[in-house]
Amino acid sequence: MHNQFSEQDRQFMQMALDLAALGRFTTTPNPSVGCVLVKNGEVVGRGFHFKAGEPHAEVMAMREAGERAKGATAYVTLEPCSHFGRTPPCAKGLIDAGVACVVAAMEDPNPQVAGKGLAMLAEAGIESAVGLLQEKAELLNQGFLKRMRTGLPFVRLKMGMSIDGRTAMASGESKWITGEASRRDVQVERATSSAILSTAQTVVADDPRLNVRWEQLPAAVQQYYPLSSLRQPVRVIMDRQHKVLPTHQLFQIPSPVWLVSDRHQNPRDFPEFCEKISLNTELNQAYLLALMQELGQRQINTLWVEAGAALAGALIDADLVDELIVYIAPKLLGDQARGLCHLSNLTKLTDAPLWKLSHTMQIGDDVKLVYQRKHKLKK
Amino acid sequence: MHNQFSEQDRQFMQMALDLAALGRFTTTPNPSVGCVLVKNGEVVGRGFHFKAGEPHAEVMAMREAGERAKGATAYVTLEPCSHFGRTPPCAKGLIDAGVACVVAAMEDPNPQVAGKGLAMLAEAGIESAVGLLQEKAELLNQGFLKRMRTGLPFVRLKMGMSIDGRTAMASGESKWITGEASRRDVQVERATSSAILSTAQTVVADDPRLNVRWEQLPAAVQQYYPLSSLRQPVRVIMDRQHKVLPTHQLFQIPSPVWLVSDRHQNPRDFPEFCEKISLNTELNQAYLLALMQELGQRQINTLWVEAGAALAGALIDADLVDELIVYIAPKLLGDQARGLCHLSNLTKLTDAPLWKLSHTMQIGDDVKLVYQRKHKLKK
Repeated sequence: MHNQFSEQDRQFMQMALDLAALGRFTTTPNPSVGCVLVKNGEVVGRGFHFKAGEPHAEVMAMREAGERAKGATAYVTLEPCSHFGRTPPCAKGLIDAGVACVVAAMEDPNPQVAGKGLAMLAEAGIESAVGLLQEKAELLNQGFLKRMRTGLPFVRLKMGMSIDGRTAMASGESKWITGEASRRDVQVERATSSAILSTAQTVVADDPRLNVRWEQLPAAVQQYYPLSSLRQPVRVIMDRQHKVLPTHQLFQIPSPVWLVSDRHQNPRDFPEFCEKISLNTELNQAYLLALMQELGQRQINTLWVEAGAALAGALIDADLVDELIVYIAPKLLGDQARGLCHLSNLTKLTDAPLWKLSHTMQIGDDVKLVYQRKHKLKK
Repeated sequence: MHNQFSEQDRQFMQMALDLAALGRFTTTPNPSVGCVLVKNGEVVGRGFHFKAGEPHAEVMAMREAGERAKGATAYVTLEPCSHFGRTPPCAKGLIDAGVACVVAAMEDPNPQVAGKGLAMLAEAGIESAVGLLQEKAELLNQGFLKRMRTGLPFVRLKMGMSIDGRTAMASGESKWITGEASRRDVQVERATSSAILSTAQTVVADDPRLNVRWEQLPAAVQQYYPLSSLRQPVRVIMDRQHKVLPTHQLFQIPSPVWLVSDRHQNPRDFPEFCEKISLNTELNQAYLLALMQELGQRQINTLWVEAGAALAGALIDADLVDELIVYIAPKLLGDQARGLCHLSNLTKLTDAPLWKLSHTMQIGDDVKLVYQRKHKLKK
């Protein structure tokens, strides 16, 4: 097989990546994967993974291709799996279908796969190549990949602020700092997340529902993500002081809530979809790390954080944030207004956490900036 | 003449606008103007105004065209002038050269012109049309146009901050919040400004030179703006408490400094290029308005403000800022760090000044956001 990928290879892999993205709202805890089968330069099969328990991308593509899979090249966005999960291994499926070669965008870091899928293909005499459009494939599954590599979810911290970095007036008045377009964008961000993290403080102050409102998703998303398939992210609420009440709006929507506290649990009765989680640590930073480990074990790939300056700062202090998503409203609130994040240990400019701007986007009257953490996660 | 402008008209006017922009560093207090002469669809003359006292755009274009100006169409970015200034009126020049018609991007609001140039052409039997690419022509001369219309300079407030809107650590430590690319961009912004406004407080704290360093301008700018033509903006320093000393770096560069105070002037001896200006007002807001009126009378078209949170806030409170230029460094400084602007009168969110994002640009590791004031200037 070619060491250098051709322009045509790139186009087919891009097609597979586009297919994979169709599953981005629903595949968690699985990765989003796309597959294109090509024979004599012609696409004979396309597939993507939609939901855990449903067919993998390769299976869907082979179903479309039928007999034409024989001798075809498979472009997959992630190494084909080698293990029996809820479905049989895809590597075996590709072998049985007589595929001639496999191009994967990247290896699957899942310890159950991690090169074994490719090895299985090689044993069967099927050529394979890895690394085509790998960067794009990484972006598609940031959460899954981070969890596989570190055991922790990929943490995205949402910040809504004025031009001068303020989230509320000194009085606490804060409704609608950012505009409607940004709030719709937040719906999309929530919809792609495995879970949403917030605090009892925010629940008490704003009484939010923290769910995905399908009707607020863009029409282009609704088209391939029907209401009937809507997946609600798990709502994770830090509630060590037991301030959350069953009467809060959270519980008007029958979808999972995880109430996190230390050894002592919130004593109230909550609906069945609410689970109480106890973390057995006391120190604040260790508590946050323990929370992330717990969420990782519970297969949370991406965590979307909507909270106040205290949790935002504590997560940053603990170096647990992978991405900042900053919505800036075209207003100035002045230096008496409330700040964005409380960083307790920072006194020297050179110690300030560094980020890398990954993109900017105008959203209605607001601007959205996305930053990624610059240095490697401490472990 | 055509009421509807053709695509070709638009192209020639764009050419004139591009020419005009070549003068943007040097024409103050005059406007930047470009002119293209076209005969039988062919460009026969091009000109732009470079510097007060030197030929106007139309004259340069007519010089290039020579005899070919006869019967040509002139595309000018601003109505040809009708008055004798340091040069004779351009409207007359166009008439004498036998130009057949004139297309102007906009009328000149200068009360000495204001339609008289076009009237002069009409009297001589020359057709004219106004309004082609007017919006772009307005942008080119925001400062000149605002001064002609209101007597005040166009005020651009520079803000350099962290993601969370902070300018310095609580200790005051602040050097190099933004990156080198942003600092180079600031050089270009300074270079296009008629004057730079700062405060004695900033001079005492940072001892800046507040000049244009030609060697830091981008190569593309240096190419048409040689060091020999370098114009230094006037440095205007608010110094009511007489804190500025002759030993400050400002005075190491022999180019105009205006030291502004109230009736009582800084008693020290300063170099000849330093002028002391007395404003005869006491109240803070009235003082700032009086300052702007004084600068308008002194023919300052655009004022670039580099100062701290106090002046920034006071200018915003007084509704004297036309544009915010925000450089955001990819850092978080936390809510103990120093804020961007002190707004003294703001307690309700609905009273927060509103802005309109006009563009975003990635500059090195930083992002630059430009906002324009949303409501009309109070007068």
